[in-house]
Amino acid sequence: MVCLMAVAMLLPMAVDYADGHSSGLVFAVSAMVTLFIGVLMVLFAYDRRPVRAGLREAFLLTTLCWTLVSAFAAMPFIGLGLPIADAVFESVSALTTTGATVITNLDGQPRGILLWRALLQGIGGLGIIVVAILILPFLRIGGMQLFQTESSDRSEKVVPRAYQLVSSICGVFVTLLLACMITFMLLGMTPFDAICHALSTVATGGFSTHDQSFAYFQSRALHWAAILFMICGALPFVLYIKCMRGDPEVLWRDTQVRGFLLLVSTAALVLATWLVLARGMHFVDALHLSAFNVVSIVTTTGFTNSDYAGWGPFAVGVFFLLLFVGGCSGSTSGGIKTYRLQVASLLARSHLQHLISPHRIVTLLYNGRRLPEDVPFSVVAFLALYMTTIGLFTVVLAAMGLDLVTALSSAATAISNVGPGLGPIVGPSGTFADLPAGAKWVLSFAMLLGRLELFTVLVLFRPEFWRG
Amino acid sequence: MVCLMAVAMLLPMAVDYADGHSSGLVFAVSAMVTLFIGVLMVLFAYDRRPVRAGLREAFLLTTLCWTLVSAFAAMPFIGLGLPIADAVFESVSALTTTGATVITNLDGQPRGILLWRALLQGIGGLGIIVVAILILPFLRIGGMQLFQTESSDRSEKVVPRAYQLVSSICGVFVTLLLACMITFMLLGMTPFDAICHALSTVATGGFSTHDQSFAYFQSRALHWAAILFMICGALPFVLYIKCMRGDPEVLWRDTQVRGFLLLVSTAALVLATWLVLARGMHFVDALHLSAFNVVSIVTTTGFTNSDYAGWGPFAVGVFFLLLFVGGCSGSTSGGIKTYRLQVASLLARSHLQHLISPHRIVTLLYNGRRLPEDVPFSVVAFLALYMTTIGLFTVVLAAMGLDLVTALSSAATAISNVGPGLGPIVGPSGTFADLPAGAKWVLSFAMLLGRLELFTVLVLFRPEFWRG
Repeated sequence: MVCLMAVAMLLPMAVDYADGHSSGLVFAVSAMVTLFIGVLMVLFAYDRRPVRAGLREAFLLTTLCWTLVSAFAAMPFIGLGLPIADAVFESVSALTTTGATVITNLDGQPRGILLWRALLQGIGGLGIIVVAILILPFLRIGGMQLFQTESSDRSEKVVPRAYQLVSSICGVFVTLLLACMITFMLLGMTPFDAICHALSTVATGGFSTHDQSFAYFQSRALHWAAILFMICGALPFVLYIKCMRGDPEVLWRDTQVRGFLLLVSTAALVLATWLVLARGMHFVDALHLSAFNVVSIVTTTGFTNSDYAGWGPFAVGVFFLLLFVGGCSGSTSGGIKTYRLQVASLLARSHLQHLISPHRIVTLLYNGRRLPEDVPFSVVAFLALYMTTIGLFTVVLAAMGLDLVTALSSAATAISNVGPGLGPIVGPSGTFADLPAGAKWVLSFAMLLGRLELFTVLVLFRPEFWRG
Repeated sequence: MVCLMAVAMLLPMAVDYADGHSSGLVFAVSAMVTLFIGVLMVLFAYDRRPVRAGLREAFLLTTLCWTLVSAFAAMPFIGLGLPIADAVFESVSALTTTGATVITNLDGQPRGILLWRALLQGIGGLGIIVVAILILPFLRIGGMQLFQTESSDRSEKVVPRAYQLVSSICGVFVTLLLACMITFMLLGMTPFDAICHALSTVATGGFSTHDQSFAYFQSRALHWAAILFMICGALPFVLYIKCMRGDPEVLWRDTQVRGFLLLVSTAALVLATWLVLARGMHFVDALHLSAFNVVSIVTTTGFTNSDYAGWGPFAVGVFFLLLFVGGCSGSTSGGIKTYRLQVASLLARSHLQHLISPHRIVTLLYNGRRLPEDVPFSVVAFLALYMTTIGLFTVVLAAMGLDLVTALSSAATAISNVGPGLGPIVGPSGTFADLPAGAKWVLSFAMLLGRLELFTVLVLFRPEFWRG
């Protein structure tokens, strides 16, 4: 993995050298150091005997990989003069596809660094899909056991072997990436902007090459194309694979996909109506703005084309709630995720029924199948832990001097991997650059914690994990 | 119940007539109308045949009682010139022992209305203890089945019959009230202030007879006495009854009581240390301020003796979290409550253990006994619903034009029945008077919902409830 990172650094290096920009050297040095350490690690740790990779190893490897890759990915940022806290924040933000930035004056930066930020989002996006499809269901994190591909029900088996599954995921990801890039180019972006924004869109990351984010591009068609591809990035990738294998209707039949599309379109319509009524906008303009920003927040991308902080308190309240929602499982999006919200509302209904008639037995069906026995508790525990974690991070950030709105919304946006928060500092028109260094470290940890669905990281803090 | 309310109205009437104040008439008319409707209801609905009071009847009666009593309790406020939304808000706030007020210039109000507000808190406080001890465990709300007094374990039976239990609760409540009142008088309060503040303190309500709340009283001893009695009001009343019946150590052995005291003292010490370090206060002054306000918020009383909004962002963050916590079950305090937080942290631990070793079976013990099978899910579902409800109320309030901090903190403070929120409008130095009428209705509903632990009210919205 570390060696692969070194190879990835050659791309921005090449771009910077082609531009005749001195920062190419930074990437060259970073690549060399990374490769050197990577090779050392392989030499010292390589063992031809097969390793028994159990549950603990999977937990540890997942967290360790993300941490290590983030550390190496931060090297070019340090080389370009960012303080360590900022460099780590930027690299974690990219790899977790959060998209919160501490770099100002993007338009004036060398293209190498912009490409590096975009590439990291692509790598992180692809990585999390693989983890979410192959590893999390096996770890039974927050109800992810619902999506075990190697379940006893053999008809549901998508692809028999892991490496075949990984190559299918890569295929889908690259196809989406190319489609997005070509569309963006056809609609008027420069090839470089198209590559960077395609990586950012499909990985639902949110980094742009311009300070104004998508507001830089005046073409409405481009914004609608971005809406489409952000949605594509937030759908379950397993379903694309099933689609390609001859069941094209599977996407429309899926409860999670339907719920996600319903939620996004309802929120966009409500906010558009609000903009029409409260701000006197034309409906088409209003829908364009509301759809773009709602999709951007719910898919946890974090692009903006308008400062919704100025839309009035109702809109701010809605965007605050949307910070928690997230897209579908097995995608690049973060947040609580649609299936958990659906399972939770199913459970709320059945729990109320149970309170009314304690002796009635209710069978819970999700997506046409019975909910496995341990899913209800897992899902609800995830929700409670999610809120608690955001609350605790809020207090820690407040202790560092952040006001309540900034502290709360940046905790939520980091743990949900969205990007922008609320308020003048971390809101859609601000950056995270002005936060104290301590807050950047805390938020980097929060992004990682959110990306790996909390439990994967938290088990490492239990003494039992290290025993036996 | 309605007839009893009419009788209660005679007290402030008498005070106002004694003061020669014209508002005595308002109470006289309210009492007559209330008594008239009450008698009518008895005449039309009375039935000598025994009624089969099942689960549904218990749900319906609990919610209906609180709503009806609130409506009648609002009459004197309307008579004194408050708009209906304000009058209902004030009466719900008193009966739910929230203590958020819309009445400004308290020091200039006739004593009758001040006594009425205090009395309503006493009635509401006593009422919720009875509901929490007798009815909620039977309804199995949010893990309250832990506190079933008529459990199969006969050694745990406190008092065999309901009416005996109710009279014991009344006895404890009145004893605490008298002790508190006498202490307040000895420490320098006028008898009237002592009565009103004792009602407010023991019921963990929070209404004062002065705009400055407890800051009006300069005696430190008085503040520490209030701290003591707020804590007394937030402990499980069943334990007092057990204490009186010859087991005085039961209070110290109880896991919930220990957890509650630990939490309160930790929070007070942390904030006191913060005040010493960040504000350069003397430790004794700092502890006085932090202990008073922490205890006031955690017990969900809502008195203030200092505007903690000025203590800096860390303190604001801590007070924001404390808005959710609450005291012990079976007391007058609201919020999530200590036992749910304890059960949740127990579950978090065991869930992480389960993720590490899926096949290990862990027995969950709480307060020295096995957790009943359905408690874990009930508790965690309560937590998730609690957060979701606060989120939804935040958006509704934001739609009415409230800024995010005001909307979020007033939703939290209403559902937790605390009293003050955060920010300049609803914070410790503000009042709810400036909110739009719609927001007052919404918050009145929120207070009721929180007081009856959400589920009691929500089941009424399920179609199954009304079927069969």
